[in-house]
Amino acid sequence: MADTAFIGLGVMGFNMAGHLACEGHQVRVYNRTQGRVKLWLDEFAGEAALTPREAAEGAEMVMCCVGNDDDLRSVLLGDNGAFAAMKKGSILIDHTTASAQAARELSAIAEQRGIEFLDAPVSGGQSGAEAGMLSIAVGGKQEVYARAAPVLEAYGKLVKHMGPVGSGQLTKMVNQICIAGIVQGLAEGLHFAQAAGLDIAAAMEVIGQGAAQSWQQQNRWQSMSEGRFDFGFAVNWMRKDLNFALDEARRNGAQLPLTALVDQFYSQVQAAGGGRWDTSSLITRLKTTID
Amino acid sequence: MADTAFIGLGVMGFNMAGHLACEGHQVRVYNRTQGRVKLWLDEFAGEAALTPREAAEGAEMVMCCVGNDDDLRSVLLGDNGAFAAMKKGSILIDHTTASAQAARELSAIAEQRGIEFLDAPVSGGQSGAEAGMLSIAVGGKQEVYARAAPVLEAYGKLVKHMGPVGSGQLTKMVNQICIAGIVQGLAEGLHFAQAAGLDIAAAMEVIGQGAAQSWQQQNRWQSMSEGRFDFGFAVNWMRKDLNFALDEARRNGAQLPLTALVDQFYSQVQAAGGGRWDTSSLITRLKTTID
Amino acid sequence: MADTAFIGLGVMGFNMAGHLACEGHQVRVYNRTQGRVKLWLDEFAGEAALTPREAAEGAEMVMCCVGNDDDLRSVLLGDNGAFAAMKKGSILIDHTTASAQAARELSAIAEQRGIEFLDAPVSGGQSGAEAGMLSIAVGGKQEVYARAAPVLEAYGKLVKHMGPVGSGQLTKMVNQICIAGIVQGLAEGLHFAQAAGLDIAAAMEVIGQGAAQSWQQQNRWQSMSEGRFDFGFAVNWMRKDLNFALDEARRNGAQLPLTALVDQFYSQVQAAGGGRWDTSSLITRLKTTID
Amino acid sequence: MADTAFIGLGVMGFNMAGHLACEGHQVRVYNRTQGRVKLWLDEFAGEAALTPREAAEGAEMVMCCVGNDDDLRSVLLGDNGAFAAMKKGSILIDHTTASAQAARELSAIAEQRGIEFLDAPVSGGQSGAEAGMLSIAVGGKQEVYARAAPVLEAYGKLVKHMGPVGSGQLTKMVNQICIAGIVQGLAEGLHFAQAAGLDIAAAMEVIGQGAAQSWQQQNRWQSMSEGRFDFGFAVNWMRKDLNFALDEARRNGAQLPLTALVDQFYSQVQAAGGGRWDTSSLITRLKTTID
Ligand SMILES: NC(=O)C1=CN([C@@H]2O[C@H](COP(=O)(O)OP(=O)(O)OC[C@H]3O[C@@H](n4cnc5c(N)ncnc54)[C@H](OP(=O)(O)O)[C@@H]3O)[C@@H](O)[C@H]2O)C=CC1
Ligand SMILES: NC(=O)C1=CN([C@@H]2O[C@H](COP(=O)(O)OP(=O)(O)OC[C@H]3O[C@@H](n4cnc5c(N)ncnc54)[C@H](OP(=O)(O)O)[C@@H]3O)[C@@H](O)[C@H]2O)C=CC1
Ligand SMILES: NC(=O)C1=CN([C@@H]2O[C@H](COP(=O)(O)OP(=O)(O)OC[C@H]3O[C@@H](n4cnc5c(N)ncnc54)[C@H](OP(=O)(O)O)[C@@H]3O)[C@@H](O)[C@H]2O)C=CC1
Repeated sequence: MADTAFIGLGVMGFNMAGHLACEGHQVRVYNRTQGRVKLWLDEFAGEAALTPREAAEGAEMVMCCVGNDDDLRSVLLGDNGAFAAMKKGSILIDHTTASAQAARELSAIAEQRGIEFLDAPVSGGQSGAEAGMLSIAVGGKQEVYARAAPVLEAYGKLVKHMGPVGSGQLTKMVNQICIAGIVQGLAEGLHFAQAAGLDIAAAMEVIGQGAAQSWQQQNRWQSMSEGRFDFGFAVNWMRKDLNFALDEARRNGAQLPLTALVDQFYSQVQAAGGGRWDTSSLITRLKTTID
Repeated sequence: MADTAFIGLGVMGFNMAGHLACEGHQVRVYNRTQGRVKLWLDEFAGEAALTPREAAEGAEMVMCCVGNDDDLRSVLLGDNGAFAAMKKGSILIDHTTASAQAARELSAIAEQRGIEFLDAPVSGGQSGAEAGMLSIAVGGKQEVYARAAPVLEAYGKLVKHMGPVGSGQLTKMVNQICIAGIVQGLAEGLHFAQAAGLDIAAAMEVIGQGAAQSWQQQNRWQSMSEGRFDFGFAVNWMRKDLNFALDEARRNGAQLPLTALVDQFYSQVQAAGGGRWDTSSLITRLKTTID
Repeated sequence: MADTAFIGLGVMGFNMAGHLACEGHQVRVYNRTQGRVKLWLDEFAGEAALTPREAAEGAEMVMCCVGNDDDLRSVLLGDNGAFAAMKKGSILIDHTTASAQAARELSAIAEQRGIEFLDAPVSGGQSGAEAGMLSIAVGGKQEVYARAAPVLEAYGKLVKHMGPVGSGQLTKMVNQICIAGIVQGLAEGLHFAQAAGLDIAAAMEVIGQGAAQSWQQQNRWQSMSEGRFDFGFAVNWMRKDLNFALDEARRNGAQLPLTALVDQFYSQVQAAGGGRWDTSSLITRLKTTID
Repeated sequence: MADTAFIGLGVMGFNMAGHLACEGHQVRVYNRTQGRVKLWLDEFAGEAALTPREAAEGAEMVMCCVGNDDDLRSVLLGDNGAFAAMKKGSILIDHTTASAQAARELSAIAEQRGIEFLDAPVSGGQSGAEAGMLSIAVGGKQEVYARAAPVLEAYGKLVKHMGPVGSGQLTKMVNQICIAGIVQGLAEGLHFAQAAGLDIAAAMEVIGQGAAQSWQQQNRWQSMSEGRFDFGFAVNWMRKDLNFALDEARRNGAQLPLTALVDQFYSQVQAAGGGRWDTSSLITRLKTTID
């Protein structure tokens, strides 16, 4: 059993930290907003810390899952940041979906202090976090990964070493790029089906048999065709992630025409007030003809 | 057992007609190029016909599976066309992926002659045709569908009535629209992964677990990353199908921005000589940076 | 002075036929809706005809300017069509923006009857028609063009022979393709300027000096930024024209990604009720952020 | 006559600083690569400085025109940066096309030191710089603008105050957004014309008369159709500028679908080795059909 800290008890982190505790690991939790810490202690066994530094004190592994690059810097760096307390050889495991560039920079800072760094963004959503069934793509040194993997299995269905630091984030970017195409294609398919007066359920049954099948098609067609988007993975998060991919592509020379376009379509969803809607809300941009 | 005719022994029709024969139906086959008929008779039990009309003579059901709208008209209409011989109450079942407009027009002509018409485009590819495991979306009258369905099960894993004539084709359009988004998204994801130097197999294992999963992702990532496209569903066919969808959208008012864009990307693949490559060849447009 | 007929007294044709009359040419006019003919005769000197055929009787040149391919066939072909009356060696000059394919087909039919055919779509809009200052791109035989050109100068500021039949229409397609990019770029520029809180007039003055200058930028920025679109060249017309280009591109292998995309954006404008708005209404799709 | 410094003697800055000298202003020039300074002193009257700081010493106005945000920070900030030497009330006029965010940040830093800041990106290209005929959009305080404007007229045909700091850069973004649409539209138009076998010069003469006219159309159609791109405004620069716009749009909520797409198309040009080609090289992505 490991001595761990968990920073960021949001939708994802709350449950991930819970799984650590349930597996019997020692967990000190920190959350900026204290209320979440109390809720967590009501449900799980562990200790509260008032700063990331306090949480990290003495831990072998410090996990964090906050919002974006800047949030990450603010919980890791500075006087009250986790790095300030982490001992040599301990591991910072970042579950935030952040930029690969941030992973590289923070890993370099960690290295100067003798701290190991793994970027380990997760996929699977809130339900995956609750069930402890996340997919975790990990970037960093092989031997560090080997030490962390058994602990990560507390909430990971698939924990995979992807290569050097940043590789976890790059893998997550591939995931989001693929989703952008799938969701826009599905949105157009459903919108067309509606405009054509088709029986949507029947159409989805047929196309779900083969080359047009996707997780989104199976799990989102119904809510999309009903216009329900108050759940799932938020458009704001998606744009953050797509922009990591688009920024990285400026560096590695990849061409992402559809990704760039869908990112702008999401901007239109945001402008319509849908920043917190599920990514499947792309369909709201497509309007049935009036007149 | 039914008395049937099958017009068009191409990649798809050859096998579909074969399944009819194997199930014990009587089958008269016609193919424009006679060589294919001989090959078919070597493998299956049935009779050859020299014209669509001759094949259709006396049949309860006439299936056809040719290339596009014009091909369809040329085997159904005119002196040697199937309609000229079909008896009242018999059913023309069109397995071609054609326009909904063609289905409507030909169905109207059929109706004047007392012939029933079903548009029944298939999905599942060559392997689905060989295995008799196609998905078939059927448009036309319910009672006509009910008569035909048991026979179609000779090669259909899922045979589904979608609504009035044209609905089969419209469903197929939804299928192709969805694929356009999935494949372009996947192409960008893989291209980005390559540009980022990721281990592609590992990345695909991770993203295949959840929201980025698709049939294409599972069945095409490997050949796409190896640059193999000499199989599968041809770009030329795909453009034909997407253009049916785009034309229909002009009529029903649907907006298909990604579909229209991907259709143009396919035009670029054609210009590069890839008209017969698999649809997954979209990735060839994306070039790794040189310098 | 020539003996002419003019078929189609719409927004464009009304004025074009008027200029013919003013120049002293003999003009017999036909319009489907008779009211327009009366209005025309109130203003200009000429004669009314009850059918295209009657108008065309005895004419050296028959001009027409109707809506689209089908309209064109309906005024040229059939018992009451112009071709039925046109004498050998006379010229049909089509000012409709139609497909190049229609021009080729109708020219072939004309040829069989000994009638000459020029496709001669116009640019310049209602104001250009009123002022007799249109640009006219002409496809057809050089010697036929040479006979027609002096007459076309009645309403043409620039009358240009482009090559064989269809070349006029192809040139018009190039025109519309260019406009699609210009207008969408300008729409995004103005939308961005609004979102950024810039003084639009000042920004337009600066960018109008150089590489971002365009006719649209000079003539449409003000109405676009005010949201006025009840004038100009209608979205419905524009989609018709873009679809001629997209269809022709399927034939000649050109790739038109932006054109295809903007065409779909126009579909969204139509769905919002803007079919009759000016093409500059693309900006209405772009919404300023709320909240 | 003003006491000025000019930092950055690149393609643009070299000529701009030259115009200052020719107008009789005192100019101290700094360039990272010393060779350019020598060349400049061969042509113009002024003094050389070894650091931005040295150049800025005692100046009323310090102009700079370097590459991008980072370059700008490196010549303004730090021990050898211009800010270190600038006196209270003197004006830093930045001609770099940089982000509005950089302008805001650097202006805030300047303010703390009592230095005035104007962002003043230019348009007009190398020839505009040589001729002293640039368009200059200026952001910053009105009264500071009023002091600077007469000096800027040394190389500005149009010098315009756009609003608070950052407004100059935002105006330049509008310019580049508009260009993205124009050039891609023109590229597709020319590519289509080639695929259609049209006489390009004739087609450009016709479409240049009206609604499809643009500066790019007039000044670039010929080189584009000849495939010459070794001049003009480089793709690498364009992508930098478009990315400023796309980043700013994430902040102000604007939707830029075409801009984002064209930016990715430029990425393809870069991947093909065209980073230094003129922006009109977008046409190289569009390939004439082979077969
Ligand atoms: N939600 C999902 O379905 C999925 C999310 N992700 C990724 O996981 C990460 C977390 O997502 P999620 O849990 O949904 O987000 P939430 O918004 O629910 O939680 C964010 C957490 O980060 C903390 N935080 C944010 N900024 C700071 C800061 N500057 N200083 C300290 N703490 C901070 C928040 O604290 P406080 O409570 O005080 O606000 C909160 O604990 C994101 O990167 C997201 O993209 C990945 C897969 C799926
Ligand atoms: N291949 C695939 O994976 C899939 C194909 N489809 C659809 O099924 C249809 C057939 O595809 P596929 O079998 O692959 O195509 P093929 O090209 O292999 O076969 C086409 C068949 O149509 C015949 N044909 C074409 N034009 C005419 C004509 N004018 N007169 C008479 N016969 C004609 C051909 O005859 P001949 O032998 O003389 O050329 C041949 O038998 C298409 O609509 C396609 O889109 C649907 C799903 C998957
Ligand atoms: N408006 C513009 O700014 C420009 C238009 N054009 C092109 O010019 C053409 C005409 O445009 P515009 O004048 O604006 O259009 P209008 O709609 O004003 O006029 C159309 C004309 O065509 C006639 N017509 C349409 N269909 C038929 C038919 N089936 N049989 C007989 N007559 C028919 C109409 O008759 P009726 O009066 O009975 O309806 C009318 O005279 C179009 O192709 C358009 O794209 C080109 C450049 C600019």
